[in-house]
Amino acid sequence: MDKPRVGLSREKLEEYIAITPFATLVGAKLEDYEPGKASLSVQLRKELTQHHGFGHGAMVSFMADSAMAWCAASVVGDVVTSEYKINLLAPAVGDKLIARGEVIKASSRQVVARADVFAVKDGRERIVATALATIAVF
Amino acid sequence: MDKPRVGLSREKLEEYIAITPFATLVGAKLEDYEPGKASLSVQLRKELTQHHGFGHGAMVSFMADSAMAWCAASVVGDVVTSEYKINLLAPAVGDKLIARGEVIKASSRQVVARADVFAVKDGRERIVATALATIAVF
Amino acid sequence: MDKPRVGLSREKLEEYIAITPFATLVGAKLEDYEPGKASLSVQLRKELTQHHGFGHGAMVSFMADSAMAWCAASVVGDVVTSEYKINLLAPAVGDKLIARGEVIKASSRQVVARADVFAVKDGRERIVATALATIAVF
Amino acid sequence: MDKPRVGLSREKLEEYIAITPFATLVGAKLEDYEPGKASLSVQLRKELTQHHGFGHGAMVSFMADSAMAWCAASVVGDVVTSEYKINLLAPAVGDKLIARGEVIKASSRQVVARADVFAVKDGRERIVATALATIAVF
Repeated sequence: MDKPRVGLSREKLEEYIAITPFATLVGAKLEDYEPGKASLSVQLRKELTQHHGFGHGAMVSFMADSAMAWCAASVVGDVVTSEYKINLLAPAVGDKLIARGEVIKASSRQVVARADVFAVKDGRERIVATALATIAVF
Repeated sequence: MDKPRVGLSREKLEEYIAITPFATLVGAKLEDYEPGKASLSVQLRKELTQHHGFGHGAMVSFMADSAMAWCAASVVGDVVTSEYKINLLAPAVGDKLIARGEVIKASSRQVVARADVFAVKDGRERIVATALATIAVF
Repeated sequence: MDKPRVGLSREKLEEYIAITPFATLVGAKLEDYEPGKASLSVQLRKELTQHHGFGHGAMVSFMADSAMAWCAASVVGDVVTSEYKINLLAPAVGDKLIARGEVIKASSRQVVARADVFAVKDGRERIVATALATIAVF
Repeated sequence: MDKPRVGLSREKLEEYIAITPFATLVGAKLEDYEPGKASLSVQLRKELTQHHGFGHGAMVSFMADSAMAWCAASVVGDVVTSEYKINLLAPAVGDKLIARGEVIKASSRQVVARADVFAVKDGRERIVATALATIAVF
């Protein structure tokens, strides 16, 4: 039943990111990208923080969600997120956020993926969140 | 064991929102606010959309997370989100997003809350997401 | 695209429950059942508890999951749970557990539903869990 | 602030499992156990199935929840599950279920952990679920 799907190429995904206004607003940059895996980074400028000075939860969620959607896209093409759960583990303090996503299971209709988000400060990574998602084929 | 906590006043919460750079960036506005309930709105301008033209999932998550954190704040004071799960039910198409949160159970250490997010188009509301969170007392 | 689906009748659902060995093992009983809503009860006998003497988390999860799957079945027919999240709010202490589920949004492929679980002790209900699920049409 | 916690020994955990009626009812057996990791198995006898003949979702959830609670116990001692999310990836068809949990982050108050559940058929493992939890120190 599950007909084979074709993943997005790096070029195509970068094109989509370029025409995603919110990704541009926050400055999301695709890092590693291979079948079943994707990572991205965002510079943690002041606009992206909350009232305690940490990276805002919405930014951390954006990182996790994007890493999961993009690693799903690498195996099934254009996608939308159906649902996810995120655990915020520590304040997102640092110069930069990095999220790394990986596919757990893919079918023709949907992908289940997980991601971890890290804050980078003075070159040292610290985990700040972990997430689990269902990503639907668009 | 559970010592009584005091909720944030509307004035205090609005003060916190005003010094939250990300909330200012996206233009979040507190709407209803009473003990155990909170709602907010955001104008869905183009910067906040994704590549299919819908409100970006990160914005929908921000709305849900804020509604849950703020209704929690109304009963226990300053808070941070520990974790949440969100189901994205429909594309966030419209002029405005509204999120409504309510406390399910509060203790001295944490609050469990839920929220629904609606897109408003031509004056008609449509549910676009539902969420469930654990919010920790800061 | 979304072709109309027919919900299970009460008779058909009770037939399915009767041939579900795990439901029989724990003694699950369908209570209210109408389009978009379902509730069930289980007598909290000792076998269903954990080492502190409370109803076991697996039982509380079973209640929530069944309430969500059954309210989904009431609108779309035979189903399987895709995923859920549950918050355990208080120890499940009592004679009986009751779970009440309701559909938030249904399409031809899946249903998003929520449920609350209550422990009944000396005739008084106390909320012990709340959950949110995606239920797939089988 | 985070005072050091002592994990449960294998002997102590097995003692707790032995006095957990629900674990006895389903026949849960602790397998690997080391600081930050735990696995368990259950023979998938007919009583533990649902109406399509697969392992019941409640059993799969029990496996995931136990693996997460027990790996948490290995680092912080006696625990209760606060919340979890589980994705059911495939029908639990086989002779045996195995769940493997690992700690992602532990503090003195709570542990965030993940687990995968596998069905074993004719000696071959297949992933059937993945989960993410917050486990509270009791």
